Amino acid sequence: MADYTLHYWPIQFRGQFVRSVLAATGSTWTEAGIDATADLRLRDPSDQPVPHMGPPVLTDHATGLSLSQMPAILGYLGRRHGLLSGKADKIALTDKIIGDANDVLYDMTRYNGAQRWTDEAWKDFQPRLDRWMRIFEATGRSNGLTDAGGHMLGTPEPGIADYTVATLWGAMTTILTPLRPRLDQQAPAIAALCDRIAARPEQQALQRDSDRDFGPVWCGGQIEASLRDVLGMDQ
Amino acid sequence: MADYTLHYWPIQFRGQFVRSVLAATGSTWTEAGIDATADLRLRDPSDQPVPHMGPPVLTDHATGLSLSQMPAILGYLGRRHGLLSGKADKIALTDKIIGDANDVLYDMTRYNGAQRWTDEAWKDFQPRLDRWMRIFEATGRSNGLTDAGGHMLGTPEPGIADYTVATLWGAMTTILTPLRPRLDQQAPAIAALCDRIAARPEQQALQRDSDRDFGPVWCGGQIEASLRDVLGMDQ
Repeated sequence: MADYTLHYWPIQFRGQFVRSVLAATGSTWTEAGIDATADLRLRDPSDQPVPHMGPPVLTDHATGLSLSQMPAILGYLGRRHGLLSGKADKIALTDKIIGDANDVLYDMTRYNGAQRWTDEAWKDFQPRLDRWMRIFEATGRSNGLTDAGGHMLGTPEPGIADYTVATLWGAMTTILTPLRPRLDQQAPAIAALCDRIAARPEQQALQRDSDRDFGPVWCGGQIEASLRDVLGMDQ
Repeated sequence: MADYTLHYWPIQFRGQFVRSVLAATGSTWTEAGIDATADLRLRDPSDQPVPHMGPPVLTDHATGLSLSQMPAILGYLGRRHGLLSGKADKIALTDKIIGDANDVLYDMTRYNGAQRWTDEAWKDFQPRLDRWMRIFEATGRSNGLTDAGGHMLGTPEPGIADYTVATLWGAMTTILTPLRPRLDQQAPAIAALCDRIAARPEQQALQRDSDRDFGPVWCGGQIEASLRDVLGMDQ
């Protein structure tokens, strides 16, 4: 039996943050698949293993705990597998970085697809997107990250903050390729960190599996179609 | 000098979650005020004490740490003041509850006011709002919360999860009064918990201060105006 079961859609997006950390910790997991994920989501809250509005939901088979909310899952995995520093200020900064990442996902998808991107809306969003990149860059640099090396919080080994950043900006710009030059310009140390994390053997293996199973799909659906539209990409 | 400085707008909303925990821990804090909050927000990220897109920003004068992201601030205060259980599953559930609360804030404001409420959009949202209430109710009940007593995670004393829930549903339905009967119906144990927390002397004192300083303003702005509109309330 696998260590964990992950209920999530067959896309990268929020689920990939969890998968990246599972891969980094050498954990095994089963993807429950789209039908089981949809079924679980629609159950009455009192009949769900953890009451939730949407996936990801991770079940830890060693303890029986089921958890929803990507930030909660990342914190849990970090504490369980030693990827979250014990220092109060570093735990708090990790939580802040996860919160920022979650907000960027909402911004990039116009709140999970509540509205589609138009050329005008996308143009208006550019200063804010640049600012998000610079917020991550400044957070990393103030903790010792450089273009040449280091981690988000100055830790010797990559932690939850690094995998979160690498999945946010790395997965996004690897799939939505026109955004990569912007990341290089606004946040060069973040771009370099993304590359260093992506080069780790277990992350490369995860990427091969994700490409095989999901294809080059970031957030999916009509919102990704409208993103590709404003970015001038093929559908 | 106060223990903390809080940069936030003169409204309840996300800031009230922080204020509620500061009050619960007997901490003193200075409200930086609207001008200082706006100034700080517009600085270049590399020139902010913590790089952030928006407030709340809390500065702990004992340690010099500045933090953005409401969920990160709540976790920090919980660990610093003993309001967050040391057990891995309860920490994770607290994070999950905070994540849900943050999503409800986004839902209720149509993502911080990205769209205004119309009668039709509000009507379409009702099943989802009910489901949110039932998600909180089921989370509390599965951990021992009842109509008659207890806390969100079955702890002897209220913790971060309880203050989060009480601020989310309590502050919301105290200001947006037409929503209270719905909370009583969908989530009676949550409604009772909100009342018990609100009755604590330090929370009553906070409420008096907030009423005096902010008036009955929940999220403020055009989005609150449109919320009051669809709820048939006075502006």
